[in-house]
Amino acid sequence: MAPTYIHPGAIVDTLTIGTGTRIWAFTHVLPGVSIGDQCNIGEHCFLETGAVIGNNVTIKNGNQIWEGVTVGDGAFIGPNVSFTNDLYPRSARLPEAEARYADKNWLTPTVIERGASIGAGAIIVAGRTVGEFALVGAGTLVTQNVPPYAIVVGVPARRVGWVCKCGRRLHFGEIETSCVACGLNYIRKDDLIGVEPYAPPAAARV
Amino acid sequence: MAPTYIHPGAIVDTLTIGTGTRIWAFTHVLPGVSIGDQCNIGEHCFLETGAVIGNNVTIKNGNQIWEGVTVGDGAFIGPNVSFTNDLYPRSARLPEAEARYADKNWLTPTVIERGASIGAGAIIVAGRTVGEFALVGAGTLVTQNVPPYAIVVGVPARRVGWVCKCGRRLHFGEIETSCVACGLNYIRKDDLIGVEPYAPPAAARV
Amino acid sequence: MAPTYIHPGAIVDTLTIGTGTRIWAFTHVLPGVSIGDQCNIGEHCFLETGAVIGNNVTIKNGNQIWEGVTVGDGAFIGPNVSFTNDLYPRSARLPEAEARYADKNWLTPTVIERGASIGAGAIIVAGRTVGEFALVGAGTLVTQNVPPYAIVVGVPARRVGWVCKCGRRLHFGEIETSCVACGLNYIRKDDLIGVEPYAPPAAARV
Repeated sequence: MAPTYIHPGAIVDTLTIGTGTRIWAFTHVLPGVSIGDQCNIGEHCFLETGAVIGNNVTIKNGNQIWEGVTVGDGAFIGPNVSFTNDLYPRSARLPEAEARYADKNWLTPTVIERGASIGAGAIIVAGRTVGEFALVGAGTLVTQNVPPYAIVVGVPARRVGWVCKCGRRLHFGEIETSCVACGLNYIRKDDLIGVEPYAPPAAARV
Repeated sequence: MAPTYIHPGAIVDTLTIGTGTRIWAFTHVLPGVSIGDQCNIGEHCFLETGAVIGNNVTIKNGNQIWEGVTVGDGAFIGPNVSFTNDLYPRSARLPEAEARYADKNWLTPTVIERGASIGAGAIIVAGRTVGEFALVGAGTLVTQNVPPYAIVVGVPARRVGWVCKCGRRLHFGEIETSCVACGLNYIRKDDLIGVEPYAPPAAARV
Repeated sequence: MAPTYIHPGAIVDTLTIGTGTRIWAFTHVLPGVSIGDQCNIGEHCFLETGAVIGNNVTIKNGNQIWEGVTVGDGAFIGPNVSFTNDLYPRSARLPEAEARYADKNWLTPTVIERGASIGAGAIIVAGRTVGEFALVGAGTLVTQNVPPYAIVVGVPARRVGWVCKCGRRLHFGEIETSCVACGLNYIRKDDLIGVEPYAPPAAARV
């Protein structure tokens, strides 16, 4: 297992970094951030106090993980993804908006579930969940929850297909299919899919 | 009032930084840039000679404020916004385009008026004005002027609503409305709105 | 000719940097990257081992040039462009996807041909070629090859016009036209254009 590594050009202010995790140059991790084991955090990233990063996560360059954002185990955050945590942002220094920022009611969380992938330059509007093993295409604007295993693209995002845990696109003829790459079996029901035997995801998050 | 603060990981080459302004790590402010009082300039930003930043401005991480871009008092620039200042860019080092860059006729200005908010990952095409207190949604491509108090979203941007100075969405029944959050009164006329008594914005910039 | 310049805030690990090239603060160039003469590489960039940069290239701030990406002579890469090199990305640390990353079959190349311009915040899906002197508008999602001299915009990109080598938009009445800025003559054939006498681009890459 690779040792934990922090590039000398990074600034790391947290103590909770897991074994084998690597953090690269020009990245700043603030106090209190939690990062799991075996992660790879690219350059020019910013992890804010309150962010939670699981194990085996890949975060490519140019990402900010704000307070309120949770990234599950094995997720992939592509380059230059924009997360948000405020649906109607104002400068907190604007006198007309000061009252709004007197407490943290403005803070709106985002969850990226385990194994999901977010493509380059995608934008995740606050308050949404990207389901497990879903794939958000490059440049997509996510404004609604993304179902598990869904491929979504566009502005705003719409579902255009399904993807296997291993990353290969799934093709459903009837309600069942197998991944041509890894052989995993899937079953489709009510516009949600699960690994056979059918285990529907936690809830209809579509 | 908080003192002016410059993170030791920032590079600041200008002398005109206002009282109480904070500039964070991995940000570079070039000579001659003017920054007002009580601003917060996030990480991984680049403020180019010729940029003008007002008072009480929030600039989140990953922004470049180029020559030709003016950011008014109390504006909010979300993460990873892209500004531009050249409508038909070429490499100035390309022999076929050298003539174009022999002077500064290529330089096209952008104005973000006071109190406006620009959402994460939005792109502002050069030559446009975002009106006061307008809200540009995350991932929006601004290709036309944005009226004051307008909410715009999409690629390209279209108006989908109105927003109060305080950040709350406004709902017009007839031509008048009040903000449910702060109580400010608005009147609508000719697809522009203003604070009552009706003070139409400088010009029909739609 | 300007001397080669590396800002003291940059990290440069390659030896193959051409004469007159400048590399600015907070940018990291990895071992083995090849950069030509007279380039300008902006701040907060990341050039990965395997990237190839020609001569006279301008790369604005906030860009990552990944392994598999080739940038031709005289190209312009605007701010915050997102390149990609994997069409179905997963975290390589995700157990279900490890097999996919056991070799480099996932690696999908991108080519930006000489003289092309990529606008701010554009996203280039892996496996595509942007033809010579083409102009990709700000915020465009490139999912197909872009013909030489084409102007493309939108999500996904569609062609909306033609552009001269010098950066000026071309207007075709019939099949021939001249640039109003630099006088260069063009001829149009089969939805491709070339400099007169008609030299069709290498292949129909539309």
